[in-house]
Amino acid sequence: MVDEVQTLARRAREAAADLAPATRAAKDAALELVADRLLEHLPAILAANAADVERACEAGASATVVDRLTLDRSRVASIAEAVRQIAWLPDPVGEVVRGYTLPNGLELTQVRVPFGVVGMIYEGRPNVTVDAAALCLKSGNAALLRGSSSAACSNGALVDAMRAALEKSDLPVDAVQLVPPDRAAVGELMRARGLVDVLIPRGGADLIDTIVEQSTVPVIETGVGNCHVYVDAVADVERAVRILVNAKAQRPSVCNAAETVLVHADVAPTFLPAALRALAGAGVTVHADERVAGYAEQAGIDVVPATDEDWDTEYLSLDIAAGVVDSLDDAVAHIRAHGSGHTEAIVTSLQDSARRFVASVDSAAVMVNLSTRFTDGEEFGFGAEIGISTQKLHARGPMGLRELTSTKWVAVGDGQVRG
Amino acid sequence: MVDEVQTLARRAREAAADLAPATRAAKDAALELVADRLLEHLPAILAANAADVERACEAGASATVVDRLTLDRSRVASIAEAVRQIAWLPDPVGEVVRGYTLPNGLELTQVRVPFGVVGMIYEGRPNVTVDAAALCLKSGNAALLRGSSSAACSNGALVDAMRAALEKSDLPVDAVQLVPPDRAAVGELMRARGLVDVLIPRGGADLIDTIVEQSTVPVIETGVGNCHVYVDAVADVERAVRILVNAKAQRPSVCNAAETVLVHADVAPTFLPAALRALAGAGVTVHADERVAGYAEQAGIDVVPATDEDWDTEYLSLDIAAGVVDSLDDAVAHIRAHGSGHTEAIVTSLQDSARRFVASVDSAAVMVNLSTRFTDGEEFGFGAEIGISTQKLHARGPMGLRELTSTKWVAVGDGQVRG
Repeated sequence: MVDEVQTLARRAREAAADLAPATRAAKDAALELVADRLLEHLPAILAANAADVERACEAGASATVVDRLTLDRSRVASIAEAVRQIAWLPDPVGEVVRGYTLPNGLELTQVRVPFGVVGMIYEGRPNVTVDAAALCLKSGNAALLRGSSSAACSNGALVDAMRAALEKSDLPVDAVQLVPPDRAAVGELMRARGLVDVLIPRGGADLIDTIVEQSTVPVIETGVGNCHVYVDAVADVERAVRILVNAKAQRPSVCNAAETVLVHADVAPTFLPAALRALAGAGVTVHADERVAGYAEQAGIDVVPATDEDWDTEYLSLDIAAGVVDSLDDAVAHIRAHGSGHTEAIVTSLQDSARRFVASVDSAAVMVNLSTRFTDGEEFGFGAEIGISTQKLHARGPMGLRELTSTKWVAVGDGQVRG
Repeated sequence: MVDEVQTLARRAREAAADLAPATRAAKDAALELVADRLLEHLPAILAANAADVERACEAGASATVVDRLTLDRSRVASIAEAVRQIAWLPDPVGEVVRGYTLPNGLELTQVRVPFGVVGMIYEGRPNVTVDAAALCLKSGNAALLRGSSSAACSNGALVDAMRAALEKSDLPVDAVQLVPPDRAAVGELMRARGLVDVLIPRGGADLIDTIVEQSTVPVIETGVGNCHVYVDAVADVERAVRILVNAKAQRPSVCNAAETVLVHADVAPTFLPAALRALAGAGVTVHADERVAGYAEQAGIDVVPATDEDWDTEYLSLDIAAGVVDSLDDAVAHIRAHGSGHTEAIVTSLQDSARRFVASVDSAAVMVNLSTRFTDGEEFGFGAEIGISTQKLHARGPMGLRELTSTKWVAVGDGQVRG
């Protein structure tokens, strides 16, 4: 296993050297070929996927898990279409980040370059295999893909299709490689310092924690979101209810869904009855502190009492913790103590509150008068997303093509030496 | 010890929360106070330093080590002056990196914010204590400083002076704290994930390797430089010699000094005799491959034979490895195999060679027709430098104030929800 992953990583490193100077035209043509081949390989992909699905069903997987795993003609078509969309995005490589001429005539530019080799470790859906590979190709990186064992056959068929496309392209075939879906391979990837430039884990908190703690390869931490909505002392109640319900219930299983609502005491009497009714209507269970429970009782709405753990819980379900605070500062202190640094929203009519909340909350994204659900590469206009970083180093928030690059300083002179 | 470092880190975290929204005016005023206090505390600083120097002499430290450790009136004045210069630099915090309005009216900006808590682990000179603290303050970060035990008294006195200044300022005193100078403290810093946002080690390769391999806190790797000068087939020989001698001999102990020169076979007959003579004149020992040794013999200049290890050695002394290559591609392949990704220079008269070298060499800095010695924050116009990153994540090359920041996405709307 050690040898196998090392061999894959060495091949990726060689491929990366050829990939780095590839033109946008060559990369886009290869991506179009990838999309074509995915459609041509449809029978093989669906057969492989059927084997994964059968295995999952036999193992008693839930309907949700099986649904995530399942591919059909239209899903594969969507995956191929997403690859074409990545081909249409601008190439991040070669972008000049800054540049100037120094007093001694030295011309200095900082230019975007690929990382080199990107290791993706992920769970669940097979579409991530293609998405991640396409984003890596476009940004000039060789991809080492380590997907879930539950999707091993599907991932194998998808990677076969992509490599068949690369064979017909001007890019190296080893730009896309699948890593065996076992635990030992993850360990090897984490120790492949010098061969792998960055690891991006996507999945549950346990997976990400393990990798962040054990990897000697630099890691970009993604995706855990204990997101807050704070409703300020003066706020448009109808707007606040709409934002809260959207943030919680529009898609509760994702990292940018809200998990706690904090309500300023001044707005609680008008906001909470409407909000609790709307949340109940959306099927949400409210884990209420004592003051929220009081309003719920008055309004005749059922809630459950919040425990200490509720404030730290990423439910990823139709549950929300709710509390009343006496000031914006108390809300910020609560978020500082319990938040995960992903996304927090304020709903307010007061300019100073918006300014203070934005300045004080230390999160990847801070929303003023809109839903937390907007923290997303597509929504932010990146065209595509490889994950949402919750760390402060390198990339913070949604990561698109630019976030898959490093930079290089290029200095041009005519014989300058240091005195 | 565990408790002590954790306590320091928690205090730093609280200080960071107060420091993040501090205005430039408040930070600059605090830095001016720091410079003032360093001068006022001169007697205490010199007395503490004398104790360190005495200890070093008793332990039989070399003259170089003692010189690096020693402070006098004029050195402390320079340190204070450097702090004032940092006050004059622009504030990186609040800079808008990019921003636009999305089709749904959502106004999005990406804004620079401090990391929070920065841990510096360094060896040697006590001036790093003040430099690092001042750069952290200016960029809104709380600094945890873990210097060398050999400079413990000096560092203590310098930090006392800085904290005395902070007490009179609008910034929190715990923005600057000294961590005990023992090994256990380094271990604790490396495990303070969630409390410390980034660790920056500065020192020898062993120190940096240990920290990169063991830290669960994100690390910015700095400073190891096996830098190359490549002299192309067609090159101005006089210019190439001047650049090579400067890159190697102007200050051989630093990471941006050249350690290997690669010479295209076509230019070797004219370049090597002149270069070997100039290097000998500068006191440099050349570790020559067979072809270089042949030219040396013809010219009557002594060289030593290069071993396999020479190509991977960061001498940091008046030694250089020298080899002849048959093409630019061979030079790039050599650099790919042996370089450390710090700085490589090409000396060439050919535009296509320059373009190809810049595109193919995967290093933090690539120089065309100038000395490798220019990879430096001051030389690059950053005004100051906290180290030179040789990793690809977050910062690559010289790190100034901007590289001590993260970013935050701020989205402002008027009630937008996701459909």
